[in-house]
Amino acid sequence: MSAEIICVGTEMLLGDILNSNAQYLAKQLAQLGIPHHYQTVVGDNVERLKQVMDIATSRAQILIFTGGLGPTPDDLTCETIADFFGAPLVEKPEIIEDMTAKFAQRGRVMSANNRKQALIPQGADILPNPTGTAPGIIWQPRPGVTILTFPGVPSEMYRMWEETAVPFLKSQGWGQEIIYSRSLRFWGIGESALAEKVSFYFDLTNPTVAPYAGNGEVRLRVSAKAASEAVAADLIAPIEKEIREIAGLDYYGVDNDTLAVVVGKLLQASGETLSVAESCTGGGLGQMLTDISGSSEYFWGGVISYDNSVKVGMLGVNPEDLDKFGAVSATVAEQMALGVKTRLSTTWGLGVTGIAGPTGGSDTKPVGLVYVGLAGPKDEVTSIEYRFGSTRTRAYIRYVSACGALDFLRRKLVTRV
Amino acid sequence: MSAEIICVGTEMLLGDILNSNAQYLAKQLAQLGIPHHYQTVVGDNVERLKQVMDIATSRAQILIFTGGLGPTPDDLTCETIADFFGAPLVEKPEIIEDMTAKFAQRGRVMSANNRKQALIPQGADILPNPTGTAPGIIWQPRPGVTILTFPGVPSEMYRMWEETAVPFLKSQGWGQEIIYSRSLRFWGIGESALAEKVSFYFDLTNPTVAPYAGNGEVRLRVSAKAASEAVAADLIAPIEKEIREIAGLDYYGVDNDTLAVVVGKLLQASGETLSVAESCTGGGLGQMLTDISGSSEYFWGGVISYDNSVKVGMLGVNPEDLDKFGAVSATVAEQMALGVKTRLSTTWGLGVTGIAGPTGGSDTKPVGLVYVGLAGPKDEVTSIEYRFGSTRTRAYIRYVSACGALDFLRRKLVTRV
Repeated sequence: MSAEIICVGTEMLLGDILNSNAQYLAKQLAQLGIPHHYQTVVGDNVERLKQVMDIATSRAQILIFTGGLGPTPDDLTCETIADFFGAPLVEKPEIIEDMTAKFAQRGRVMSANNRKQALIPQGADILPNPTGTAPGIIWQPRPGVTILTFPGVPSEMYRMWEETAVPFLKSQGWGQEIIYSRSLRFWGIGESALAEKVSFYFDLTNPTVAPYAGNGEVRLRVSAKAASEAVAADLIAPIEKEIREIAGLDYYGVDNDTLAVVVGKLLQASGETLSVAESCTGGGLGQMLTDISGSSEYFWGGVISYDNSVKVGMLGVNPEDLDKFGAVSATVAEQMALGVKTRLSTTWGLGVTGIAGPTGGSDTKPVGLVYVGLAGPKDEVTSIEYRFGSTRTRAYIRYVSACGALDFLRRKLVTRV
Repeated sequence: MSAEIICVGTEMLLGDILNSNAQYLAKQLAQLGIPHHYQTVVGDNVERLKQVMDIATSRAQILIFTGGLGPTPDDLTCETIADFFGAPLVEKPEIIEDMTAKFAQRGRVMSANNRKQALIPQGADILPNPTGTAPGIIWQPRPGVTILTFPGVPSEMYRMWEETAVPFLKSQGWGQEIIYSRSLRFWGIGESALAEKVSFYFDLTNPTVAPYAGNGEVRLRVSAKAASEAVAADLIAPIEKEIREIAGLDYYGVDNDTLAVVVGKLLQASGETLSVAESCTGGGLGQMLTDISGSSEYFWGGVISYDNSVKVGMLGVNPEDLDKFGAVSATVAEQMALGVKTRLSTTWGLGVTGIAGPTGGSDTKPVGLVYVGLAGPKDEVTSIEYRFGSTRTRAYIRYVSACGALDFLRRKLVTRV
């Protein structure tokens, strides 16, 4: 038994809208433990939609449609489905009543073309739409085939899914088993290197372990299938523990725990504060930290020292060292860190200086070279050199520079004695 | 002749990621005038991918794949395509070379499993990946079938599409009639208010004019269909001129001209400099300005004065005014602006202070209340109050606060005598 998602709408073929409905439904099906192997997008076109249904009914038992239920002539999902299974359309008085009431509520008169939305295939049930005017249907046109339709407007679909579709699916004995996943996050190790370390786990079947990478970090998704989230969590826990032990310090968090969240929690736990001095990130590190509501408890602020005069004037960087070592150097990163820590009277100070590109690189100092300086509670300073690669975009280098700075502090916070 | 988009990745079937690649490719194909009628998402599964290829090759001539090109065992797009057409995989030394160089640049050693990425079907051409390690292929395995593959990482795919795929498609005689669009950008006016002013243009057929809104700004997309970009541009130019005249100061730029780009150009033209003092934006305004390569010419830096002690200590805000008017006030915004301008010796200084939420709001100072202060060449100060709405998210309020600050400066720069 499996489901298939069919999204209908020419606007998706033109790239005018992002198909977020497919992601929502995919996540919902996964949580219900209903397998689903294909998603199809097709335009508002009768023949092509029928062809898609031909294929889908040959490989799935639950067909979930979004889009094409509205009042305009290009909305043809419902009539095409009826025609595909050879059923006539019938007008449902309760839909007309519901629409009339909704229009009245908004102080409008229902225009004639809305009556189209009251036509559903003979034998189908109404899938009520509490917020909009176009209802969906729930229909078993022949044994082994179940049809669910939803309008394309995401907010309308969500409520219809939650309030009617989920109880219906469960009543059919589907979705009794759920899939629960945890996404383990790693920084400072590449996808292939991590994969080699934990390749043993990729052969497991329940839970499964799969790697994916993006934006400078690697994740391992650990997913378990079970009768309840608690049972699934019990299946995941020992595997997660083992992987975290193997990965050591490269593991930093799970699910929505970004590096800024993790560093924030560590600082809150120790009652310490942080300030930042930013050159190549230009404010991005501060923004990352202050994305979190309540970050004012441990993040006090910083200096964006984009121009060298600001490094000297506002942070006390030694002009001779700027000349001698250059703005992009370990020395300057450390002086920035100590300068901001001292001036803002925080426990920790981070300094970031690098070459974000695309211009400004040289043979000895290529684009992607970044130094992070860290000043600690006793004014001790240390630094790290990153080489993010000169083929990377400016936005990528700036983003991973800020992450790299947070990661440097994180490692210090969890390893100090 | 038509194209079909096939996105490969179990993560999409689990709803872990949004399929933004399909939207990007759909938009690109529309711009090239290449028809496309279907998009399919399928998991990392050999048999199912082959079944999808069976269907796709029966109804389309150009098959565009994204995802599944990486180094791990579940990345199987390329080998499945080769197998489908009965071609052996061959290792390309130039890919090994390119990968080795990229790993070296990042100071890492290439792990063995990366060699997999150098295997492509015999007879296929490499579609180079300038930023990542996994290349794609361009392949005509049999007459009437063209295969293009891309990695799933969006930023890598974009460059590969623009730099290699588009020239290739054009060289094949596809995408000859083009759709050329310009997206006119407006700040400080709502979608319905702007739509009322320019509604006349919505009835045009070539070019077409359509409004869309998002992230606090409104855009009008003006699109023309023609044999060449030059002819399309000629169709657009007079309409664009009229709309800009109607919109006046609310129009600020076109396409990729963000507010930061526009302000940067104005400052460059006048040879002036800018510094920023940020409270609620926490670095986001600086980041917006430094997203632009070359911004160091006019943007010198700033102070992230998240904690009040930093407003006083680093910017010279009067502690009595902080007590009397509160940190979120016009007075403090102006003192922040003047403080940073004076200390960093720039022509202009911007100060931003507000309540980003979700907590910290009150009846008199609700979430979404933001003050922007501006200090000018003669140390004159002025400010503006924004109310972005207390139902908005923290991320939204922070983003539009930074935009609102830039817009305030933009209006000053273009209207001064």
